[in-house]
Amino acid sequence: MTGAACSAIGRSMTDDPPFSPALLPAGFVDLLTPDARTEAEGVATLMGVFASHGYDRVRPPLMEFEETLLAGAGAALAEQSFRVMDPDTRKMMVLRPDITPQIARMAATRLGAAPRPLRLSYAGTCVVVMPAAAEESGRQIMQAGIELIGPDSPQADAEVVAVGAEALARLGVPDVSFDLTMPPLVPALLEEAGISAAVRPALMRALDRKDAAAVAELGGAVAETLIALLRAAGPAEQAVEQLAHISLPPRARAFSERLAATVTALRHVKPDLCLTVDPVEFRGWKYHTGVCVTLFAVGRAEELGRGGRYLSNENEPACGLTFRPDVLFRAIPPAQAMRRIYLAPDAQPQAAARLRAEGCATLAALPPEAPYRAGPEHDRAEARRLGCSHILSGATCTELD
Amino acid sequence: MTGAACSAIGRSMTDDPPFSPALLPAGFVDLLTPDARTEAEGVATLMGVFASHGYDRVRPPLMEFEETLLAGAGAALAEQSFRVMDPDTRKMMVLRPDITPQIARMAATRLGAAPRPLRLSYAGTCVVVMPAAAEESGRQIMQAGIELIGPDSPQADAEVVAVGAEALARLGVPDVSFDLTMPPLVPALLEEAGISAAVRPALMRALDRKDAAAVAELGGAVAETLIALLRAAGPAEQAVEQLAHISLPPRARAFSERLAATVTALRHVKPDLCLTVDPVEFRGWKYHTGVCVTLFAVGRAEELGRGGRYLSNENEPACGLTFRPDVLFRAIPPAQAMRRIYLAPDAQPQAAARLRAEGCATLAALPPEAPYRAGPEHDRAEARRLGCSHILSGATCTELD
Repeated sequence: MTGAACSAIGRSMTDDPPFSPALLPAGFVDLLTPDARTEAEGVATLMGVFASHGYDRVRPPLMEFEETLLAGAGAALAEQSFRVMDPDTRKMMVLRPDITPQIARMAATRLGAAPRPLRLSYAGTCVVVMPAAAEESGRQIMQAGIELIGPDSPQADAEVVAVGAEALARLGVPDVSFDLTMPPLVPALLEEAGISAAVRPALMRALDRKDAAAVAELGGAVAETLIALLRAAGPAEQAVEQLAHISLPPRARAFSERLAATVTALRHVKPDLCLTVDPVEFRGWKYHTGVCVTLFAVGRAEELGRGGRYLSNENEPACGLTFRPDVLFRAIPPAQAMRRIYLAPDAQPQAAARLRAEGCATLAALPPEAPYRAGPEHDRAEARRLGCSHILSGATCTELD
Repeated sequence: MTGAACSAIGRSMTDDPPFSPALLPAGFVDLLTPDARTEAEGVATLMGVFASHGYDRVRPPLMEFEETLLAGAGAALAEQSFRVMDPDTRKMMVLRPDITPQIARMAATRLGAAPRPLRLSYAGTCVVVMPAAAEESGRQIMQAGIELIGPDSPQADAEVVAVGAEALARLGVPDVSFDLTMPPLVPALLEEAGISAAVRPALMRALDRKDAAAVAELGGAVAETLIALLRAAGPAEQAVEQLAHISLPPRARAFSERLAATVTALRHVKPDLCLTVDPVEFRGWKYHTGVCVTLFAVGRAEELGRGGRYLSNENEPACGLTFRPDVLFRAIPPAQAMRRIYLAPDAQPQAAARLRAEGCATLAALPPEAPYRAGPEHDRAEARRLGCSHILSGATCTELD
């Protein structure tokens, strides 16, 4: 890996230069205060919003047997996963690169008999062998998200997006754009139109590049339809209006109508979202079977979160949304610093306890740096040296000048 | 591993039988609500108490290079560590079995120039190849703790124990016993008394078993002193009083006096702790150089936490305390369940938002299980099916009968 790539991957959330690039593997960082607190408190805020909508917190383990975690939808994760041998069973274990397949496993097994809709939330750390994309910052990634398992309806899709929107608003992330897509629409259309398998890869690439000229050339009987779909991308209501006028074969039509119905359901619960629709976008969606969403902070290229509809274990309908707190927390202000108060050797314990109860951090004087009866000048110097703004002497708290 | 050992290691915190012992590797578990919430909220409570005493939260990564993490004091962890190769550098990386050596690394490098006393806190997940002791429950272990780096004084030792005591009290753990020990005392005494290296292992085992007869037989010139030390173990003040009357050579005497001074300093800040002293206990302490503490819930064999004084990187004095939240939270009541309120299709969004703001969980009606206009009987049945105690219809919240 080049030095530039290494430093891009290894940087901390505050863009501090790493202390020593050689000390930690690329993509693994030490977080300090306030970043570590911002992240922890931000995750707690997200989980609080999820819980308030009935999403029950679960905590699957960091490692699982390869044969369990990488089964089914998890198979796509195989090349991103670190593996170790379990010395006990001699079976391979995987350090999870993603929490979603674990939730699917739990929903199908231990929670298989729990009533549906099953609403679950999770927050935890994952490790990938290499970052999925250049803009992603690490190999240790944090995920916090929700899964709504059971119902397959526009209202269910909309609930997941709406709960995500409320969580971001609670965190204070400004100007979020919610970009809805329907990844299975184009493949269904190409199949229904009988586009030959030989042409499809080049056509998909042209669609991915939004290259209308190449689409016109490769699209055969559906070239005009595909170009109309490309042009429909934009603000949600306008896109839905255009979609309604595009003639589509039955399966593609059903996907298009479901996308429109999801926009309607979402507007019903969250009228003010900045919502866009791109019916052609499919990049990065592997196992999704319905509406998907990507969340961006307006003006930033990094995704704040993503999710969508898929089939969980045993083909049970499910819709999920995952935030990347380590990315998200670059978009919000750092956790408010606590007021730091130095406790002089004569500070009254009850007064110190009151200050802590009010949200202050109290730093006790400790020998040998702070010998008892060293005098107020020494105390003030110590307080300053330790980054305190106030000093407590007796029961009196004074701001340092 | 036998089936019995497997199920003991794999059990959940609530002693539920695992859904399928074969699904997850031994020592890894799925936590459900309320356990997952109890743990997360409990960790937040611990971290809040630590922060209120000026301990700044840091978050070192889950993996590090072997040569970094297992250097120095970390070497003792080698056999507990899973390793994988970094495909980028071809160097071995370690999945951390312990966070403490990471804090030591940060204190010596990136925070090397930060003012002392350096107060740091951390919470995170570790993985060990096999549980350290039969009574420990997992290979995925959680740690939350503090490190006080720089000062070497009885007041510093006392601060760490006192902050830990406050954290346990805040969590509501009842009847905690704080057992102080001084692991280097006996080795110093045996060395100063010139006990031959050939005899020492058997003598240490006898002391470990508290076997006074064997100690009398093997202890030579210090047999009487060792038996007096054994007998001194007990409630702190009584133990300190007895220790003061035992004649000891200089280094052993210094350790004994430091133990007594720590008791005094601790009583000064926390007069009401249930505090015991065992001057002979050394089991489980590997690299410690001063006062150590083990925290037990009275009547339970499991440790809630442990810590003590050691030399950090570059021989800097340090004192730390680590809690095991996964063990700790078996000793406290589960997180209070949120009131679950079913939102009938006609529920007013503003009324639902108010209920969430008051701490309730609202579960929206979703088609197809809850078709719009299905009627109040259907709504109530749905609410019950989803474990709700109340239903919101319009702006009216009603308790289910």
